Amino acid sequence: MSSDGEEALRFRLLSAQLELARTEKRAVVVLVAGHAGTGKGHLINRLNHWLENRLTEVQALVPCEEDRRHPYWWRYWTRLPARGRTTVFVHGWVGDALLGAATRRLGQGAFADRLIEIATFEADLKAAGITLVKLWLDIDVDVQAQHLATLEADPLTRWQVTEDKWFRHSQHGVIHQLGRQLRKATETEDSPWLCLDAAPGNDLLTPVARHIIKAMEGAAEGRFVPRPPVSQEVLNPASAIPQLSDLIEHAPAISKSAYRDRLASAQAKVAELARRAVWRGIPVVVVFEGHDAAGKGGSIHRLTSALDARTYRVHSIAAPSERELLFPWQWRFWQRLPADGAVSIMDRSWYGRVLVERVESLIDEQEWRLGYRQIVDFETQLLRHGVVLVKLFLAIDSDEQLKRFKARAVTPHKQHKLTEEDWRNRARWEEYEQAIDEMFAATHRKAPWTLIDANDKRHARLAVLHEVAARLEDRLQAN
Amino acid sequence: MSSDGEEALRFRLLSAQLELARTEKRAVVVLVAGHAGTGKGHLINRLNHWLENRLTEVQALVPCEEDRRHPYWWRYWTRLPARGRTTVFVHGWVGDALLGAATRRLGQGAFADRLIEIATFEADLKAAGITLVKLWLDIDVDVQAQHLATLEADPLTRWQVTEDKWFRHSQHGVIHQLGRQLRKATETEDSPWLCLDAAPGNDLLTPVARHIIKAMEGAAEGRFVPRPPVSQEVLNPASAIPQLSDLIEHAPAISKSAYRDRLASAQAKVAELARRAVWRGIPVVVVFEGHDAAGKGGSIHRLTSALDARTYRVHSIAAPSERELLFPWQWRFWQRLPADGAVSIMDRSWYGRVLVERVESLIDEQEWRLGYRQIVDFETQLLRHGVVLVKLFLAIDSDEQLKRFKARAVTPHKQHKLTEEDWRNRARWEEYEQAIDEMFAATHRKAPWTLIDANDKRHARLAVLHEVAARLEDRLQAN
Repeated sequence: MSSDGEEALRFRLLSAQLELARTEKRAVVVLVAGHAGTGKGHLINRLNHWLENRLTEVQALVPCEEDRRHPYWWRYWTRLPARGRTTVFVHGWVGDALLGAATRRLGQGAFADRLIEIATFEADLKAAGITLVKLWLDIDVDVQAQHLATLEADPLTRWQVTEDKWFRHSQHGVIHQLGRQLRKATETEDSPWLCLDAAPGNDLLTPVARHIIKAMEGAAEGRFVPRPPVSQEVLNPASAIPQLSDLIEHAPAISKSAYRDRLASAQAKVAELARRAVWRGIPVVVVFEGHDAAGKGGSIHRLTSALDARTYRVHSIAAPSERELLFPWQWRFWQRLPADGAVSIMDRSWYGRVLVERVESLIDEQEWRLGYRQIVDFETQLLRHGVVLVKLFLAIDSDEQLKRFKARAVTPHKQHKLTEEDWRNRARWEEYEQAIDEMFAATHRKAPWTLIDANDKRHARLAVLHEVAARLEDRLQAN
Repeated sequence: MSSDGEEALRFRLLSAQLELARTEKRAVVVLVAGHAGTGKGHLINRLNHWLENRLTEVQALVPCEEDRRHPYWWRYWTRLPARGRTTVFVHGWVGDALLGAATRRLGQGAFADRLIEIATFEADLKAAGITLVKLWLDIDVDVQAQHLATLEADPLTRWQVTEDKWFRHSQHGVIHQLGRQLRKATETEDSPWLCLDAAPGNDLLTPVARHIIKAMEGAAEGRFVPRPPVSQEVLNPASAIPQLSDLIEHAPAISKSAYRDRLASAQAKVAELARRAVWRGIPVVVVFEGHDAAGKGGSIHRLTSALDARTYRVHSIAAPSERELLFPWQWRFWQRLPADGAVSIMDRSWYGRVLVERVESLIDEQEWRLGYRQIVDFETQLLRHGVVLVKLFLAIDSDEQLKRFKARAVTPHKQHKLTEEDWRNRARWEEYEQAIDEMFAATHRKAPWTLIDANDKRHARLAVLHEVAARLEDRLQAN
């Protein structure tokens, strides 16, 4: 390419990026995958030089200890760009899958599962307003060998030829085969793969820059409309799904002294089990959802009283911050996942997507329907990593809520908890009831809900502790 | 305390916290230290229940792998609360020091050094508008033994008595002694230690809540005025400190072909050395400062071309974001430090504190003078952890800058780099020259500056690579 043409292209790329940043409508993820010895490092370096530094990140880091102590996709979710920004992933999830399969760490079945996960992840990026640019750098096996040998012969370039490049060369056929399979499984209309012949001497920067410009220009204009790929499996749930109408008869009252004894004993049990879980590196997530004033805070307090302060974190979920709004909606929940051997307690959770955001019409129907599938996928990732996931719904009836609201209004340290929003939510009681039951139906199967009658606080607190203990016990006995 | 009195106290605490959040003037850090068996967990749990969850964090986590791969204070700097928020540290840096000394991991000298570091850290919190509340929970050695035995005898409370509690009991005398020494060394007028007798049955929550209320109310009102404790050592520098006037004669021009050869060879050398450093887990920080249009970007590009993309990160430092402004000014730089075995390249850096923030009067004289001491302390922490710290200043003269500004104005992909700010900075050339020379003088001694003549770009790029190579070589030969 002529120097003038190059100059013009560079300017167009930069302009597209600045426009992306100005509108803050979408983010761009560039994934660079392919064979070894294809000059990825060089390409990315030049590309990075063309892009505006302050708007770009290159993510080529090898997974650290922290990554391995979280569910697999954590490392990518937590590193996504905010809207307006660009992140270049080198190898990324595609490299993990190919190298995993080539080294047999991923068996055939696991590789097939991973392809589905990749397609799902990429669909979620799209749904979240992230434009994905996928590049595959191809090279003939003989050209690859010759190129690596040439680099190695020159003392000035020898350092570029790391051992894993020769390993990848030895696996050229396998990677070629797996790569085709992977590209086929993840090809979509919006994010087609761009395959390039990366033989030495070929200009890669020009086609890559053009491809990115096109994606960025589309991204800056495009108004995003998600399609809800909610599968039938999720919408046609099995039996034994909880329903709010199950709670017709109230739990019997518990005397103060009986409560004290039973609380101490339940806490001791949770304490013992949680310590063993932590010691064995098991991650635990306890989700608290429930009606306003159902007593989530008090229940959480009784639970944390039984836990070692060094091991747990309580996450109170309110409306997302301005910064959080620049990311996919799931992003802030990935950020709050526990590492192995730690406990995250969610005071409200990702279920806000299909409760408050739905009922308050903060998102449209397509989005909250898609949310069911996204939540099931998210929780599946947790389970697959070995997280003990306890989902509790604390339910009270309408009269009890009104009684508690009134009590809050006259208790000084509780007044700030009672806001207009509470009354507004209360006015939409019926809509919430419907959303809650549909939520149970759509998200119960893989990670079951426990519906707790919270009309009596003592009963609810004990039930929470018993459920957590039972779930920990199951896991500790299982392995 | 009567139930009514308790209710009132709880309300006052909550009100103070909500006011703190409303004004966003200061943050509050509560440090809970002291002997084992003093009911810290119980106290914090109740305190946490009284405070507003969404404004509070409890940090009691044991250091993770990620913490150990960064300079010691990283784990605390990165976990500080934003203004308006409260963080409770359990044991925290005080616990580290005491347990370190009790287990002999910290020798006497190292313990004494640590006390100075603690005092400095706490002074920096204060300077950044963070109110520090320090609690020491005391207990008589016999009462401690009896209390632990009682807890252990009851199956319901046995879980609270972990092995390290008995170890701490066996070290009661030592911890008592060290604790007194530590409190004496870190007692200040603004953050006095509150010592409490934590014998079983004593009410700790009331005095603690009162103490925190007082601190929060002071924090909400108080207008912070930092005193600059810049030591003479730093202000009376040794010789060999660079000065801009050193660069009278320009470096000789380099032909294009000679440059190409020398560039390739210098990059190969850096590549080889950097790979060895990464492999040995050595963290590297390269700071680029310099005049506007001095060619930092181009030099960084030539440096990163020699590095493995998986190992480095370029951080372009512009004005802090709104969120970053809620934290101490150093916070965003702590966030950008490399883990062991990684490279952080700073395109501008913490030196903005004593350059642009000084010259543009974004802070007052006391603050930028204090900045020298804070920078020296910060860099000392890096060096102590084993970071290879390379500080480069790329200097051009005024005529050359004007020439480059004019060239930028006519190059499409460079136009966005030339802003009004550049011209404004240029108008303050003399003030910057003075600030730069004073910066050299105040911050050269512990971590030396390399002043690079950047009037010739080729010369500058080679000089950068040579300096980085030399510094890596020094370290690799040293151990």
